[in-house]
Order: sequence, then C-alpha cells, then structure tokens
Amino acid sequence: MMRANHLIKTRAIKAGLPPGTLVHIGETPAAAASITLIQFDETNFREEPLASGTVCDTTFSDTCVTWINVEGVHDIETIRALGECRHLHPLVQEDIVSTIQRPKVEDYGDYLFVVMRMLLPQPENGFASEQLSLVLGQNYVVTFQEGLRGDAFGSIRDRLRHGKGHLRSQGADYLAYGLLDAIVDGYFSVLENFGERLLELEEEVALHPAPQVLVQLNELKKQIIYLRKSIWPLREVLSFLERGDSDLIAGTTRVYLRDVYDHTIQAIDTIETYRDLLAGMLDLYLSSISNRTNEIMKFLTIVGTIFLPLTFIVGLYGMNFKDIPELQWQHGYLYVWLVMIGLSLGMIGYFRHKRWL
Amino acid sequence: MMRANHLIKTRAIKAGLPPGTLVHIGETPAAAASITLIQFDETNFREEPLASGTVCDTTFSDTCVTWINVEGVHDIETIRALGECRHLHPLVQEDIVSTIQRPKVEDYGDYLFVVMRMLLPQPENGFASEQLSLVLGQNYVVTFQEGLRGDAFGSIRDRLRHGKGHLRSQGADYLAYGLLDAIVDGYFSVLENFGERLLELEEEVALHPAPQVLVQLNELKKQIIYLRKSIWPLREVLSFLERGDSDLIAGTTRVYLRDVYDHTIQAIDTIETYRDLLAGMLDLYLSSISNRTNEIMKFLTIVGTIFLPLTFIVGLYGMNFKDIPELQWQHGYLYVWLVMIGLSLGMIGYFRHKRWL
Amino acid sequence: MMRANHLIKTRAIKAGLPPGTLVHIGETPAAAASITLIQFDETNFREEPLASGTVCDTTFSDTCVTWINVEGVHDIETIRALGECRHLHPLVQEDIVSTIQRPKVEDYGDYLFVVMRMLLPQPENGFASEQLSLVLGQNYVVTFQEGLRGDAFGSIRDRLRHGKGHLRSQGADYLAYGLLDAIVDGYFSVLENFGERLLELEEEVALHPAPQVLVQLNELKKQIIYLRKSIWPLREVLSFLERGDSDLIAGTTRVYLRDVYDHTIQAIDTIETYRDLLAGMLDLYLSSISNRTNEIMKFLTIVGTIFLPLTFIVGLYGMNFKDIPELQWQHGYLYVWLVMIGLSLGMIGYFRHKRWL
Amino acid sequence: MMRANHLIKTRAIKAGLPPGTLVHIGETPAAAASITLIQFDETNFREEPLASGTVCDTTFSDTCVTWINVEGVHDIETIRALGECRHLHPLVQEDIVSTIQRPKVEDYGDYLFVVMRMLLPQPENGFASEQLSLVLGQNYVVTFQEGLRGDAFGSIRDRLRHGKGHLRSQGADYLAYGLLDAIVDGYFSVLENFGERLLELEEEVALHPAPQVLVQLNELKKQIIYLRKSIWPLREVLSFLERGDSDLIAGTTRVYLRDVYDHTIQAIDTIETYRDLLAGMLDLYLSSISNRTNEIMKFLTIVGTIFLPLTFIVGLYGMNFKDIPELQWQHGYLYVWLVMIGLSLGMIGYFRHKRWL
Amino acid sequence: MMRANHLIKTRAIKAGLPPGTLVHIGETPAAAASITLIQFDETNFREEPLASGTVCDTTFSDTCVTWINVEGVHDIETIRALGECRHLHPLVQEDIVSTIQRPKVEDYGDYLFVVMRMLLPQPENGFASEQLSLVLGQNYVVTFQEGLRGDAFGSIRDRLRHGKGHLRSQGADYLAYGLLDAIVDGYFSVLENFGERLLELEEEVALHPAPQVLVQLNELKKQIIYLRKSIWPLREVLSFLERGDSDLIAGTTRVYLRDVYDHTIQAIDTIETYRDLLAGMLDLYLSSISNRTNEIMKFLTIVGTIFLPLTFIVGLYGMNFKDIPELQWQHGYLYVWLVMIGLSLGMIGYFRHKRWL
Repeated sequence: MMRANHLIKTRAIKAGLPPGTLVHIGETPAAAASITLIQFDETNFREEPLASGTVCDTTFSDTCVTWINVEGVHDIETIRALGECRHLHPLVQEDIVSTIQRPKVEDYGDYLFVVMRMLLPQPENGFASEQLSLVLGQNYVVTFQEGLRGDAFGSIRDRLRHGKGHLRSQGADYLAYGLLDAIVDGYFSVLENFGERLLELEEEVALHPAPQVLVQLNELKKQIIYLRKSIWPLREVLSFLERGDSDLIAGTTRVYLRDVYDHTIQAIDTIETYRDLLAGMLDLYLSSISNRTNEIMKFLTIVGTIFLPLTFIVGLYGMNFKDIPELQWQHGYLYVWLVMIGLSLGMIGYFRHKRWL
Repeated sequence: MMRANHLIKTRAIKAGLPPGTLVHIGETPAAAASITLIQFDETNFREEPLASGTVCDTTFSDTCVTWINVEGVHDIETIRALGECRHLHPLVQEDIVSTIQRPKVEDYGDYLFVVMRMLLPQPENGFASEQLSLVLGQNYVVTFQEGLRGDAFGSIRDRLRHGKGHLRSQGADYLAYGLLDAIVDGYFSVLENFGERLLELEEEVALHPAPQVLVQLNELKKQIIYLRKSIWPLREVLSFLERGDSDLIAGTTRVYLRDVYDHTIQAIDTIETYRDLLAGMLDLYLSSISNRTNEIMKFLTIVGTIFLPLTFIVGLYGMNFKDIPELQWQHGYLYVWLVMIGLSLGMIGYFRHKRWL
Repeated sequence: MMRANHLIKTRAIKAGLPPGTLVHIGETPAAAASITLIQFDETNFREEPLASGTVCDTTFSDTCVTWINVEGVHDIETIRALGECRHLHPLVQEDIVSTIQRPKVEDYGDYLFVVMRMLLPQPENGFASEQLSLVLGQNYVVTFQEGLRGDAFGSIRDRLRHGKGHLRSQGADYLAYGLLDAIVDGYFSVLENFGERLLELEEEVALHPAPQVLVQLNELKKQIIYLRKSIWPLREVLSFLERGDSDLIAGTTRVYLRDVYDHTIQAIDTIETYRDLLAGMLDLYLSSISNRTNEIMKFLTIVGTIFLPLTFIVGLYGMNFKDIPELQWQHGYLYVWLVMIGLSLGMIGYFRHKRWL
Repeated sequence: MMRANHLIKTRAIKAGLPPGTLVHIGETPAAAASITLIQFDETNFREEPLASGTVCDTTFSDTCVTWINVEGVHDIETIRALGECRHLHPLVQEDIVSTIQRPKVEDYGDYLFVVMRMLLPQPENGFASEQLSLVLGQNYVVTFQEGLRGDAFGSIRDRLRHGKGHLRSQGADYLAYGLLDAIVDGYFSVLENFGERLLELEEEVALHPAPQVLVQLNELKKQIIYLRKSIWPLREVLSFLERGDSDLIAGTTRVYLRDVYDHTIQAIDTIETYRDLLAGMLDLYLSSISNRTNEIMKFLTIVGTIFLPLTFIVGLYGMNFKDIPELQWQHGYLYVWLVMIGLSLGMIGYFRHKRWL
Repeated sequence: MMRANHLIKTRAIKAGLPPGTLVHIGETPAAAASITLIQFDETNFREEPLASGTVCDTTFSDTCVTWINVEGVHDIETIRALGECRHLHPLVQEDIVSTIQRPKVEDYGDYLFVVMRMLLPQPENGFASEQLSLVLGQNYVVTFQEGLRGDAFGSIRDRLRHGKGHLRSQGADYLAYGLLDAIVDGYFSVLENFGERLLELEEEVALHPAPQVLVQLNELKKQIIYLRKSIWPLREVLSFLERGDSDLIAGTTRVYLRDVYDHTIQAIDTIETYRDLLAGMLDLYLSSISNRTNEIMKFLTIVGTIFLPLTFIVGLYGMNFKDIPELQWQHGYLYVWLVMIGLSLGMIGYFRHKRWL
C-alpha cells in the first residue's frame, strides 16, 4: 500500500535556514553516492566511475560531450563540490538535494536547470518515484538522481556504447533530449501497469463489490493524484524547452523535444482518462451496494409479508376461547390450509405484478 | 462490450528505443498492406494498386495531383521506403506506425503531417477506431490507415472517378480537405448510432432500472470518454490548418477547412451533450433504486405493523393461565375479532394519512 | 415531452456528399416555402409575397433597404436560386438548408452570414426551436427560417409598416440588429415560461416527492441543456458583430448590438441560474426520499421492537410444559399484563430519548 | 422566504418594442419618485428636493459638483426628461428603468454609465436588492435608485454636509467613487448577516438534521446564487474603471477605485467560501440521515434477531403433538429458559463483536 | 474546533466611514504594541525596542538597512504616526489595521506594499493566522504584525545578529525576500501538521466510520478552505514581485523571489492534493456507512427469513382444531423437526448461493 505521507512530504524542516543551504530532504540510503563519467564524440567513447573527491578533476572539452551522472543526492559534499566547479547557483544546489521539487525548468544563461520526477515500475506497489535534476550546459550534461534504485537510462548508455542512432554524433542538447525522452517513456510503463490494475479492479467491482474493493479504489485514486501532480507540470517544462529561447538547444533538437512534449500530453491524457474511469468505478460500486441492499430488503419483505399473516392465522386458532366455532367444524384444519395457500398465492401474484419476483 | 484496454493502450513497449525507430504498436492483421495510387488532373484519372516494393517508383508531377493510400501500417518496410523517398522525418515515420497518437498537425515546411482517428461504425460494439496519418505536400497526398477494415473515403474515390464536384479541378490541399471532411462526417454516423443506444437505454432506466442497465451506462460512458479523447484535439488541428500559416494550403481552401472546423465543434458539442445526458441518466437510475427500496420498505412496514400486533393479541389468548377472564366470556372470540379489525382499520387510516398507501 | 432525439439530430446523412451539396436536414413540412419581400426607405414602404420562381427578379437599390424573408428551407430550389443571384458561397447555401448549425457568424467580405436558433414559445412542450439564417449585405437583408410556424418578427414588421422608431430611417445593418434583437427578446419569453414550470416543480419536490417528479426534473434538465447549447455560442457571434471589423455595420449600430450582446449574456446568466436551481432541486428530491425511507423504517422499528418481545412473552405462557409455576399463580394473567405494559412504556421512553418519537 | 421568481424575473414583457422604449420592469410602488439635488464645492453646500417637473432647471457649473439622486425609477416621465436634458443615449434611459440589468459599465465619451445592484439588509429575509444606475459626467453625478426603500448613501450625505474627509474638495469622479464604495461596503453587511444564519444552520445540521433544515439549506443556496449573480460582474466593472481609459476619472481617484475593486474581490471570495461551506453542510446533512437510518436499522435488527428465535422456541413447546418428550421432563421449563438466555447472550456477544452495540 | 466565523469575518463595521479612516478590525489584545528597530550593514548591527511615541525619531540612512517591526496593529496611533512620517498613503494605513485583507501587492512608486497571511502552528487547533503587512522602501523595510503571538522571523533575526548568510551584505529588498521566504516556509509546517491529522483521520474512516469522524472531516475541510483562501492569492503577489517592474528590487534578488514563488506553487499544489484526499475520504466514509447498513440488513434478513417460517410451522401445530391428523402421528414431533431442519438448511444454502453468507 502506498504510504499517504508520500503525498504530504513537505519542505517544513527547512524553515529558517538561509537560501542556498544544502539540506537533503528525502530518504537517505546507507550507501555512498555513485558517480559515473561518460565522455564521447563520434569516434571516441569513455565511461568510468568517479570517486567523490575527484568530481571536479574532469576536463571538459568543446570537441566532445561530457555526461556526469550522480546517483544519491544525500551526499551533500559531492553535490556542493560539483556545484561549485560547474558554477551552479546556490539555489540550484539547494533544489538538487531537497527532493520534493515540482517539475520545472530554469534558464541561468550558461546552463539550463531541469527538475522532474523519474518513475520506476516496482513489483510491490506499482512504482517508485525519485527526483531527477538535469543541468544542460555547453557540451556537457550533469544529472542528479535522488536514489540508488537504478534509472531509466540503460538504453541510452547502450546506444552511446555501441554508437546506435545519432546520439554519438550530436551535441549535449540531444543527449539531454534522449534522457528526457527515456524518462517520459518510463512513465508509460508505469501507466500501463496502473491501467492493468484498474482493469482487474473493474472486474471485481462489477462481480463482487466487497468493502475492500473500495479501499483499493481509494488507493488507486491516491496514486493517480500523485502521478498527476508529478507529470502535469512537465508540460510547461517541455513547452519551454521546445520553444527554445535558449542558445543551448539547437534548432534540429527542437523537433525531437516537440516529440517528447507530445508524449507528455499523451501521458497526461491517459491520466485524465484513468481519473474518469476511477470516478465511473466508484459510481458503479456505490450503486452496486444500493442494488444489493435493495435485493436483500426485497427478500426479507417477501418472506416477511407471506409468513406474518400466516403466523397470525395459526395463532388465531391456537387461542383458548371457550367457543371458537371454526375449531368445531368437520374440515376446519383443511379449510384453514386452503385459506393460507390462497393467501400465499395472492401475495406471490402481487409480488410478480410489482416485478419483485 | 468495448474492451477497456482500448483506453489504456500506451507506448510502453517503445521505452528505450532510439527516436525514429519504427515499431508498430497496435493490432497486426495477417494480411499484407494494401497500397493504391490515384493520379488525376481535370481531364485524366488513373487508379491502380501498387506492390510493396514499387511504392517509390511513382513519378510525381506538378501538373497532376498524386494520392497514395496505404492500408495497414504494420508493414514497416513499406512505410520506411515511402518515408525515405518522400523525405519524411524519422519521427513522422515513427508516428505513422505507432498507432496511438493523439490527433495533431505538424508543419515540416515541405509537407504538413496530420494524425487523427478515423471512426468506422460497426454493428457489434458501436464503432471501430483506427489511426489515419496524412502527409500533404506540393501536389501530393499520402494517407496511412492503421487497419484493413476499409475506410471513410468511398465517396471521395467515387467523386474523383466520375469527376463530380470540384475535386478534380483543385489541388492536393483540396483533396486533403475532402479526406478530412469525409472522416469528420464519419464521426456523425458513429455519434448518431451512439445517440440511439442512449435513447433506448434511457427508456430502460425509466421503466426497469435493473442492475445490468448500470453496466450498460458505464459502457456508454467509457465509449464517450474514448470519443472525446479522439475528437477533442482535432479542434486545434483544424484551427491550425484554417489559420493557414502554411503555403501548402490555398486561400480558397481555407473557407472549406473552416467548414470542417465547424463540424468538429458540432461533434464536440454533441459529445458534451451526451455526457450531460449520461450523467442525468445515472442520477435517474440511482434515485430509481432509492425509490424502489423505499417502496419495498413501505410494503414490509405496512404488512409488518398490521400483523405484529394482531399476532400478539392471538398469542395473548393462547396463554395457558388458569384464569384469564376474557376466555370465559360469552362472545369473547367475537370481541377479539372486533378489536383486531378496529386496530387494522386504524393502522390503515394512519398509513393513508402518511400517504404511504 | 421533449423528444430526446431533438438533442441527437446530427448531420450523419450528409456523409459522403461533396461540399456545397444542398440536402435539407430537419422536418419537412408539406406546404411550400413562403417568401415575402419588404422594401423601404424613410418615405416609401412596399411589402409583397414572392413566388418561388421570381425570387431573383427583385431590383436591389442603393437608396432603399430590401428585406427578403424565406420561410421553409426545405424548398431547396428556391434557396439555390436566391443563393446564386445573391452570389452566396456554396457552403453558405448548404448551411442554410441543413438546419442543425451551431450559432455562428462568417464574414464573406460582401456579406455577413449569421446562423442562430429562433425559439418560439409553444403551449404543449415549452418551446419550438428553428434555425434562422441571416445574410446581411450592402442595403439588403435576407432571412431564412427553418419552418412555417411563424416567427418573432411581427413587431419589426409593424414598426416598419407604421414607421415607428428609427427603423425606416436606418440602413440594412440596423434592420439586421432589429431582427437579432427580436429573436433574443424571444428567448426571454421561453426562459420565463421555463422558470414558471421550475417554480411549480419546486413546490412539488418539497411537498410530494413522487417518482414522476424526478422524470419531470430530468425533462427540464434536458431542455436546459438544449437551451444552453442553442444560446451559448451566440455570445461570440454578437461579440464579433459588436467589435465590428466589417464595413457593413455602421458605428452607430454597434452600440445597439452591444445592447443585444448584453441581453444575450443575461439570457446565459439566467440559464446558468436555472441549472443551479435544478441541481439544488435534485439534491432536495434525493434527500426527501432518504428522509421518507428513514421515517418508514422508524415506524417499522418502533412497532416491531415493541411487539416482538410481547409476542415472545405471550408465547412463553402458551407452552405446554407440565409445570410452569407462573401459570398456577393467582394473578398470573394480571402480572404478565403489568410486565408487558412496563416493557412497552420502557421502549417508548427509549424511543423518545432517541428522538425517534 | 425568498421568492424564487426573484431569480427568474426576465425582460420578456419588453419583446417587440423598439430599442429605447422606456418600460419599467420591476415593482411599482404607489408613491411618486423622490428627487434630491446636492451641489457643493469646498466652501459651499446646497441640498434641496426637486419636483418632477423641474429636474432640468438645475444649472450645472464647472466650479462645483452637482449630484442628482432619483429614487423610484417607475416614474418614467422624470427619467425621460432628465435623460434628454443630460443627453443620455436612449438605450441608457431604457436600462435605467428596466431594473433587471446585469452590473456593467459603458463609456459614452461624455459620460460613463454604471449599473449595479444595491443590497440593503432587511430583517425578514436577509436583504432587499435594487438596481442602482449611475451616470458620471464632467462635474456631475446622477444616480437612479430602483425603489423608495432608502439607500446606502447616508454616510456620504453626512460627510458632504459636514465637510468630513476629502469629499468636498474633490471632483465628481471622487463622489462617484464614494457612492460605489458605500454600495460595496453594504454588501459586507448583507454577507455578514448571511454568514451568521449559515452558522446557526450549521449547528442545527450537526445536532438535529430534521427535514426542514434541508429546506433552509436550499433557501440559503438560492440566496447565494442570487448574491453571486449580483456581485460577480462588478469585478469587471471596477477593473474597467480602475484601468481608467476614460478622462472623466482623475489619476488620483484610481488608487481609490482599486481599493473598491479589492473589496469586491473580497466579497466574491466570501461568497465562494459560503458556497463551499453550504456544499459541506449538505454533505453533512445527507450523511447524518444515512447515519440515522443505519442506527434505526441496527436497533430493529438487534431486537428482531434476539426475539425471533426465542419466539420460535416458545412456539415449539406450544405445539399440541401427543408425545413431545421435553414437555414431560421434570425441569423442562427451566431448561428452556436456560437455552433462551444462552441464545440471547450469544447474540449480544455477536453484536458486540460486530460493534453494533 | 476552528470557529467558522473565522471564515466569515468581514469588513461590515467599516461601512459608511471615509476612506483612509483607521479602524482596527480583528482581535484586540490587552497589551500595547511592541516595536523593534534593527539597523545593519555588513559590519554594524543595532537592535533595540522602540517606544510608541518615538517611532518617527529613527534616522534612515542610505548606507545601512533599517527594519522596523511592529507587533499589534490595534495600536492605531502608532500606525498613523509611522504611516505619516514614512508618507504611506491613507489607504495603506487603513489596510494595515483592518486585518482581513486578501494577500496583495501594490506599487506606490516610492515603496511597495505587500499584505499576506502569516500562519503559526498551534497545538490546539492546527494553526493561528494573522495578517502581515510589509512596506519595502529604499533601504528600509517596515513590517506590521496583527497580533502579539510571535512570528516566523526568529531565524532571520538570528542570521542578522550573527552575520550568517548574505543577509547582512544585501539591501532592503533581500531582507524583504528573507521575510517572505520565512513566512512561506512557515506554511509548510502548518501543512505538514495538517497532513498528519489527515492521515490519522483516514485510518479512522477506514476502520471505525463513526458519525464524529464526519464532523472532523468537515472541520478539516473548513480549514483547507481557509488555507486555500489565504495562500492562493499569494501566487500573483510573488509573480508580480519576481517579474520586477519596480526599481526597488534588484535583479539579483529576483532569482530568490522566483524560488519563493516556486515554494508558493508547491504549497498550493499540496493544498489541492489535500482537497482531493478529503473528497476521497468523504466518499470512503459514505460508502462505509452504506456497507454497514447493508451488512446489518443482511443479518436481519437471514435471521428473519429462517425463523419466520419456523415460527409459522410451530404455530400451525399449536392450533386447537379437533382433528389435525399430524398431531396423532406416532413420530409427528420428530417429523416436524426434520421438516424445520430441512427448511433451515435450504435457506442457508440459498444465502450461500447469493453470497450473503
């Protein structure tokens, strides 16, 4: 079950600190941050892990693209070091480590700063969500991943290693596009997964509207609220990038960014559809309950209204009055049965007429 | 019954592939793609099937309009060949084969790329929906249909063959308009069909609000969600075409595109009306159920509250106490009947007063 | 009762026809179209019926205003003849005869084309609705009414005939304003009528929330959906005319068009208010039903919970055990009555405490 | 109780009249209109009543500010006379007397015409509402009040008479500001009053959710619909005045108009809050009803399910079979009591387990 | 419990007063206002309390930043004195003391005037809310706090005193940013607190949906309405400051204001999420009640429909007819037991089939 406090994590603990103070908000894994350096141009490719202390020793060159990927933003010292040698604004450094940012893009002239949520499908509760910060500068990209759970960039690394696609022959902006695209593609895995759980639940709502189904509906609703909050603001981010007021993004890359923008709109469309479906399922559930109550009441009413009069009749002839004439009749017992059968048949006829039977 | 996964089909399987990779998303029919070439000017008309391998052999000419129609986008090789000889951007090729696009229009300078949903009325579940991609260039139109189920273009072909209307004397932009118009006209067949099912269901809701009516209501609601998602974005597409920033569309054609735009708005209006009607029917259904429960309870209450006291009375005189004076009375049995009849009449009077009878 | 298919009439039968094909969509009355010509300037006034074949023989003059009014657009030949001699675009002719247009205005340079709904109060089901198309050119107005039911223009004709108001001294644009104004004024008759039915129904909802009240509520809701759909788009139409980008409308007329615009906004406001009232009445109805169920259950509970224990007690002393000591008591029967009366009073006290009595 | 036809008063009776025809729509009091003239500059102050026939005899001067206040717009002759000598557009005169205008502002160059609702707190049904029209010209203000019920301008007159504040030293625009401000301040009295009734009702909903509470809720809801409709459009009016495209309003007055604008937004905010509170109270009411039904059913279920089995048991031993062995047992009666007590305790335990007791 | 009149406090008592009249609206504490002066530059720091009479004796200097903080705006004399020596517009003075302002910013050229709500977490009812007015001029900031409850500025004072962060080396605009930031950070403490109460309540809704849970839900809903109303307008305020049309705010400070803007959007996002969660909880609650009613009815139905027929049977053989053949049978009593057991088992089977058991 998704913890609801996922939805209510706020930046309250930062109250009172000066701006630019690096305070990690989020889960703190035990392991240290893991840093990888990739440098490539059309002919060369270099990939190596970096130690925390050496993040600033890398030589950036105009002839190749440099990609530094940091996993684990709880390692504040590394972030600060990297932030300083790359001249990142203190507020940018602060945003990187406090992992509760709303997706946004900020243009600092020399570099663009993009924050978004990376969703990773998880077997147990649908998906994990972590913050991804991306700094795109002239010839370099630095990415910061919140956790150590892995990422959505496996295929990008493969394509870089093996020189598939244009990735190796293009600049840092195209690499940044590739990374954004990989993240947005990841949203669809999560959404498809979600959609399947929705389908299963729909079947249950229709067939066995038990109370726990409602709990599950509520659970899915909370997840869709979370997904919506994570993805919706990305629309503006990509629209900003595609419009391309920044020189850091080449005109040829913009058409690709428009493609990612289209995918984001599609993801948002899908989320809205799921919301509508969930609302429909809740209606279905509530009226199933009403229907069942109705059916139960009908059954009680039928049995009750047939047997209450009959019980009265048999009680009548159980009275101990001295002279009840019917009790002395030859076929009294038979007659009373006939009356009771007639009464029952009349009731049943009435129920049929009312379409209760 | 419409499969809900129609609504949740996503592009998840494409995650990790480089942009421009052609992967067919959607149903894959067994048959091969079927390609038709139509070339015409005011005096000449040529229509012939094309083999997959010869799609690029066609000579495009400035003096006539060329229309290539491809049915079945699962045939990736053909799409790629055609895409390359017509210089279509890799992302365009990708969009053509992954048939889950949101309706959109993109201006690539040399050509316009339009994606939309084509709806075909179907007897069993209302309608089939497939993606139609259209490339409008100088003097040519290429259309890509998702499936092999046929299309909405029969009348266009007839008018071209027999030279009816202006179609033969106008350019490729007018042909593209004609195709868009035919698709939007097709929406109305689907909507009218839908409207009739709505009417039938409304009658059932009013007369026999059985539980399966709710399931059908939910089914229609899901279809209207799908229709809305398919048609709504077309509004922007046509508004873009009508504004006409592209040189590919002549001024005289724009007034016709405005007409299609108006029809699209009308279709959207109709969809919104259906949504409102569906919401009203759900309210009607729910309160019908409440009314029925109310009526059932009323019946049980009437029978119960009449016979429970009577049963008590007859039980009273069935007691075996040594000396119950009433039992010894001359007309005790008669009196007890009088009391019971009086009580029942009083109850009935009370129910009439309460308007329960 | 308003037929719901009023709400679902679409242009489906037009699918596949070339643009500009005149196909009448709508009711087709038996009678022929009725055409009237009115020509006037400040001193002269001429009013005469026109035969179908002579609609194009009229001489239009710059010194007087010409108004041709056509009732019955099912007479396609007349529409086409008039359309051709007045040089109306084929799409305009098409829109005139297919009477399912959304209110709109189109500027064709030489003339403005306005489509709107004309509502006529009707005794039986509230109102009739027909399409009114208006062509405003230099010195002339042509109006096309869908049906033969009469129109809202009686007072305009009177004022023209008797020279009341400025109508005779102004141009065609002022006449067009007068006609639009008359139609919008007609909306208020319909809305007032509607409002009175709403008031009557509200009283019934409060006093006797019978099931048929819900059907009537739903009926009104459908009508308000229809009214909304008919009037809402008029807002944009009048805003366009008032802004006055067209030379056909004089500056002095614009202030009058702003007045019609204000009335339209008022009509829309009224419709929104009615929607809110209807929603409130539905809530009231539903909770009335809940209240009644509650009251019925309360009655059953009171009677049931008093008599069930009593019936048990009397049953107890109807048992045939050999030695039930109470049965042998001197005043056993009296005691048992006392116990039963005490129990009943206790129950009644409990109910009073619970505020159920 | 607020009459709902307050909400449905329309301009239907004006249908067919030429524009500029003065027809009074609204209540017509028996008394004649009451007209007051106030003229002032920094040193002089004159206040006198005017007779209907002499409204045009006033000399307007550039060195002092003239304020003519007309109460009772049913006096059409006076309005027309005043309208003509002040050169008011016929549509303005028409709007003044038909008291169903939506709040609006119109710039006629020489003068600004403002229409709004003036709300006056009333003991019996919360508030009275009348139309206030205000014409602001060079050095003069004319106000038209719908009724004779008094107005919100008492404090303005006091401040003018006694020379308090800047009112005497400023121009007509500042006077107009003062009047608008007084009216908007009046809204808050009405809203506060409304808020108190809301609070009282909320308490009742929580403690005694009787059916009449719902009727009152509905009543308040209708009032809030009316208030919303009356105040909401004022936002645009004041925003227009504050932006100040008209020369009639001095720059220094604009900052004061912004203040009125802020108050209007505050009033609208308050109305929206009340709407939310009302919606919450309706939810509270409905679920209180559900809770009560639930509680009643629980009681019936407990009593019923305890006594039905007991009644069966005592009935069992009331049977007249020849040989029922238990009847012959020594302590049969005692045993049957033990069984019944055990059964009852078991039931009670089950109910406790289910948290029904 | 939050008093609802918190939500309905209006400016009604100010009706009729001239603009610029200082009337305190809000709670009036017994204690006098408390005024503090802080003056600092990079090297110097001075902090001292000011007496009410000496607020205007402070020397403002261009080389240092002056911050005057007033707590307790009920002290109208002090506000007026300060307002006059700082040349604040009368409307600004009025807004400061009437503590019901909507958050807003106003540019008076020489100074910016900002009003907002300061939220302070409180143990008993979640939070206290007071108005904070801030005047930012050249080299000075004056803040006015509504109450004496303390504020959110502790950390700012600490950083000033100890020279931490850039605060001491920047201008008055940066100080103003710091104060706004501290207030917005305070919102998150309140929201986190709120979120926790939401979580607790959610658990209760799921486990024990008692009536008082609904009251608490309603309480939280009212608080979220209040929070929304307090924070939502701040968005525009900060957007205005960040766009920076005023010379009083340096370009370097704008990037920090954008950060506060982002935090405000985050707070609003969180509020919207809470609203959605609350709506979900209400649905959950209502259907829990329906479920419980359903379950209770089911139990009654099962017990009732089993025992009513049995009671009829035993009543049957309690009748006193002369010749009831079964009564004479050898094993009559046994047979009747078998019939009753068979009937019960049949019923139970039926219930299982219906999934009621």
